[in-house]
Amino acid sequence: MTKEQLFGQIQKKRSFLCVGLDSSLDKIPKHLLKYENPILEFNKQIIDATKDLCVAYKPNTAFYECYGKKGWETLIETWKYIPKDIFSIADAKRGDIGNTSAMYAETFFNEQSSEMSFDSVTVAPYMGSDSVMPFLTFKNKWVILLALTSNSGHADFQLQQIGEDKLFEKVLKTSQQWATDKQMMYVVGATRGAAFSDVRKLAPNHFLLVPGVGAQGGDLQEVCKYGLNSQCGLLINSSRGIIYAGQGEDFAEKAREEALKLQKEMEGILVGANLV
Amino acid sequence: MTKEQLFGQIQKKRSFLCVGLDSSLDKIPKHLLKYENPILEFNKQIIDATKDLCVAYKPNTAFYECYGKKGWETLIETWKYIPKDIFSIADAKRGDIGNTSAMYAETFFNEQSSEMSFDSVTVAPYMGSDSVMPFLTFKNKWVILLALTSNSGHADFQLQQIGEDKLFEKVLKTSQQWATDKQMMYVVGATRGAAFSDVRKLAPNHFLLVPGVGAQGGDLQEVCKYGLNSQCGLLINSSRGIIYAGQGEDFAEKAREEALKLQKEMEGILVGANLV
Repeated sequence: MTKEQLFGQIQKKRSFLCVGLDSSLDKIPKHLLKYENPILEFNKQIIDATKDLCVAYKPNTAFYECYGKKGWETLIETWKYIPKDIFSIADAKRGDIGNTSAMYAETFFNEQSSEMSFDSVTVAPYMGSDSVMPFLTFKNKWVILLALTSNSGHADFQLQQIGEDKLFEKVLKTSQQWATDKQMMYVVGATRGAAFSDVRKLAPNHFLLVPGVGAQGGDLQEVCKYGLNSQCGLLINSSRGIIYAGQGEDFAEKAREEALKLQKEMEGILVGANLV
Repeated sequence: MTKEQLFGQIQKKRSFLCVGLDSSLDKIPKHLLKYENPILEFNKQIIDATKDLCVAYKPNTAFYECYGKKGWETLIETWKYIPKDIFSIADAKRGDIGNTSAMYAETFFNEQSSEMSFDSVTVAPYMGSDSVMPFLTFKNKWVILLALTSNSGHADFQLQQIGEDKLFEKVLKTSQQWATDKQMMYVVGATRGAAFSDVRKLAPNHFLLVPGVGAQGGDLQEVCKYGLNSQCGLLINSSRGIIYAGQGEDFAEKAREEALKLQKEMEGILVGANLV
């Protein structure tokens, strides 16, 4: 998917919501456990209930890998079920030396090899340029590079000072030598809205994938105040706040209600910014 | 496996060799393609031919994931085939927020969940403490944290100066607040032997996993000169140099010959240092 197509979807749906499919056997409604593949059934019902309200789905690979072969199959079937006009994110946080990152790129981008072809994959920057470049050789596929994450441990290294910059700022600057904003996005956590002001100085035009709204305590208005740009430039992820909104037979309706609240708030923000 | 057990294996086998199982369909001998699972057959023959010469096996998960469901099954079956007195490393370079890293820990350490229980997993440090801690809750399991990698991109961030330290030195220092040398090792690339002198000042007792000997140009003697400690403290990985030594029906014998060369060199080093 191109940047223009993504912005087109945002305008059409009046939403920049990403639904995180962090689906776990011990958290999905109990009545689903009778299905042959409870997590796949859960994901399908969540997707059916929210697909007109969001522009992206983001399964986190950890939640699938932990179930071994069956989990990997569930990830593949979930990807297949995501409508192809919705931006798909493999939240995998991969990164290795060049020839190995090339195999990870095959994993997430080459359907003939792995039966999956996500629009994007999250990548960790620690190993530098050649760990990221192999993901950039696929047309209309995206790297979403970790910059400033929403967890408490982000302070250990990401906020450390390197010359004039913090490490995450160094990542934002250096990585712009590898790709443009048409192929790279950044993960920027929502737990510090004002940080978006610093990020936008360095990456005014990039899309930012923003986890941490909801369960992790981030504030949508604050993020948009500092983070919105002329093509929206934000994908706001909510996982637990949406997918686990209900535990009964009506869990998908409850998920839809939560997604709708966020979509309505986003619509107001987009209208206010003259973006729709 | 405990640190003492690992050192015991090193003394018994007079080797600190790790064989990297970076097995790829386009690089294994052509005659294996007739098997139902060529990579598994390749791995089994490599393991049979080298298991008395090495103390660790390290499949890199990228080489398995890229083949989708079948690849994941091959990873599981390969883990099962590794003798349980040999240290097993899932070279996965994972790392995510706390609740997600906990799922990755289940993936690689909890056999009941995933059918695999490696002795260790490689972890990327960028997200900090809570991205690493969940891997440390498993008894006698290890985190092998990326410190200084062997690829060209390591200069982009790992060598950046933070106060008195380079980033990789900061990683070595900070992470020692999370675990001792009985549960944590570090990845330190072999392409700069003298760098081991700096690493040993900060981590004198830790085991170091050293990729980059062989195909990536590192030098065993140089690494040992600076890196050896009183319990050996080194696991030297060779992947392509061993597993792709031959392309004929005798590929496993050729792999054994290369592994034997390294084992003999290591034996000399261990004898010279009075460690056996």
